[in-house]
Amino acid sequence: MNAIGIDLGGTNLRIAKISDEGKILKVVKVATEVEKGPEQIAEKMIRFINEIKDEETQGIGIGVPGQVDNTTKSVIQCTNVHMANFPLAKLVEEGTKLKCIMNNDANVAALGEAKAGAGFGKDTIYYLTWSTGIGGGLVLNGQLHDGNNFNTGEIGNLIIWPNASYKHSIQNYGSLEGEAAGLAIKRYVAELGFDDEYAFFTAYKNGNEAAIEKINYIADTFARGLANIMHTIEVDKFVIGGGVAIKSGDVLLPLVREKVNNYVLPTMVGKVIIEPAALGDDNGLIGASFLV
Amino acid sequence: MNAIGIDLGGTNLRIAKISDEGKILKVVKVATEVEKGPEQIAEKMIRFINEIKDEETQGIGIGVPGQVDNTTKSVIQCTNVHMANFPLAKLVEEGTKLKCIMNNDANVAALGEAKAGAGFGKDTIYYLTWSTGIGGGLVLNGQLHDGNNFNTGEIGNLIIWPNASYKHSIQNYGSLEGEAAGLAIKRYVAELGFDDEYAFFTAYKNGNEAAIEKINYIADTFARGLANIMHTIEVDKFVIGGGVAIKSGDVLLPLVREKVNNYVLPTMVGKVIIEPAALGDDNGLIGASFLV
Repeated sequence: MNAIGIDLGGTNLRIAKISDEGKILKVVKVATEVEKGPEQIAEKMIRFINEIKDEETQGIGIGVPGQVDNTTKSVIQCTNVHMANFPLAKLVEEGTKLKCIMNNDANVAALGEAKAGAGFGKDTIYYLTWSTGIGGGLVLNGQLHDGNNFNTGEIGNLIIWPNASYKHSIQNYGSLEGEAAGLAIKRYVAELGFDDEYAFFTAYKNGNEAAIEKINYIADTFARGLANIMHTIEVDKFVIGGGVAIKSGDVLLPLVREKVNNYVLPTMVGKVIIEPAALGDDNGLIGASFLV
Repeated sequence: MNAIGIDLGGTNLRIAKISDEGKILKVVKVATEVEKGPEQIAEKMIRFINEIKDEETQGIGIGVPGQVDNTTKSVIQCTNVHMANFPLAKLVEEGTKLKCIMNNDANVAALGEAKAGAGFGKDTIYYLTWSTGIGGGLVLNGQLHDGNNFNTGEIGNLIIWPNASYKHSIQNYGSLEGEAAGLAIKRYVAELGFDDEYAFFTAYKNGNEAAIEKINYIADTFARGLANIMHTIEVDKFVIGGGVAIKSGDVLLPLVREKVNNYVLPTMVGKVIIEPAALGDDNGLIGASFLV
């Protein structure tokens, strides 16, 4: 048996046939061309699904970087790909005669890591994407928990520093995302006068005090977020993916592992497991196929 | 079919025969007499279980106000009843020939409310006990989620005000419990010079500014805690029990319901359901029987 997993991005669209165990059997990658409108995105999906599906294909899962509604089979809002109230899954079902289920990109990445990546074999997995923003997903015994309004995993909005002066977008003041995500790091780089993130992290490694202080603040903020998650639902493992974790994980993850012990109860000190994602860019693609 | 539910408290011990639907069929209440040692507590349990059990009794569940280990069938630590590494469930199993499972008091209360109380019929329930301390429990599809180290529900330790000057016990600075639980209210009452909690809440109702400010702070702190839980795991309903909620819920819960909307994402505004516990003092007793 197999299923189709689709990773819908603002730049590229990837459509893959994936085995029940999460192995990519075949993958097609094409430009999304969002400027040509949502209909042609649906048409491309249908064309390539019909090209790679076979008699063992059970259905289609799509990871969408936005808000979806599986009842109306529509993308409610997804600015990255210029979709609003667009019946994407409905069109794909009509065009392929296969059932199609959508979820947001952080949730499908969580599902991929939990079932075929760094969280394999564990009952309770919290996946966090540490990227330009911070999002996440919770997988319990192989099942995604998303909530009736898909708010599970909206951990970017956790209030870490209530007295902070910065408010990111529609989020709370001092949110985890506003203070520790890639967008925050970019802000700190500018404030401290570094050329770019690379220079910032290099300065940290070379003992620059301002960089050391700020990078410790970032890791401390993230660690406080993980401790709050842990006290709300004790997870077997945190899995961390996303661009920041990939590029700066060698600096940040050891600091986070150390600092989280400052904020958990004695029974959890030394027991919080934090691992980098194992499937890299493919976790969303593979996870989408597990929606089926 | 039925099961035995036991509520082990520092003052009283309640042992009940409870139907599968959570109806109390028979209950015995005796003094715990902690000063006479843990062995006599186990002996009392065995005596009354054997007195009320029948051929349809499937097993025994005990709610313990402390830390338990079901592998060794022991209470690891429970200062209220003077137990430390005491094989309570082992003795009870030997003395009754019924299987015996333990969990902490907040978790069994959560289970009781989720399966037979205010959370009945909902998939994801977070129960919070707002009492001298603040604890909680998470029930998913009728199953308790406690975590390998029973840290799920340790929400008293959520960091709400990281810059606060008060640190309660082994918890974080500015923890939910340290700033909003009964023990915090007692502190505020003393600081503001009120005679007692009753005078404090009466002053609030009569428009006393200091009381208004402080009670808004308490409700705001609690609301921030609920929002953080909601972004970690979107629940269908929050159920709030415990002495503070019972005595001052008419003031606090409406404020919390209002303020939580300040901290959730737009998709959740007006959708956070917060209800008082329905089973009162019996939720732990009934919930314990559901451990079986």
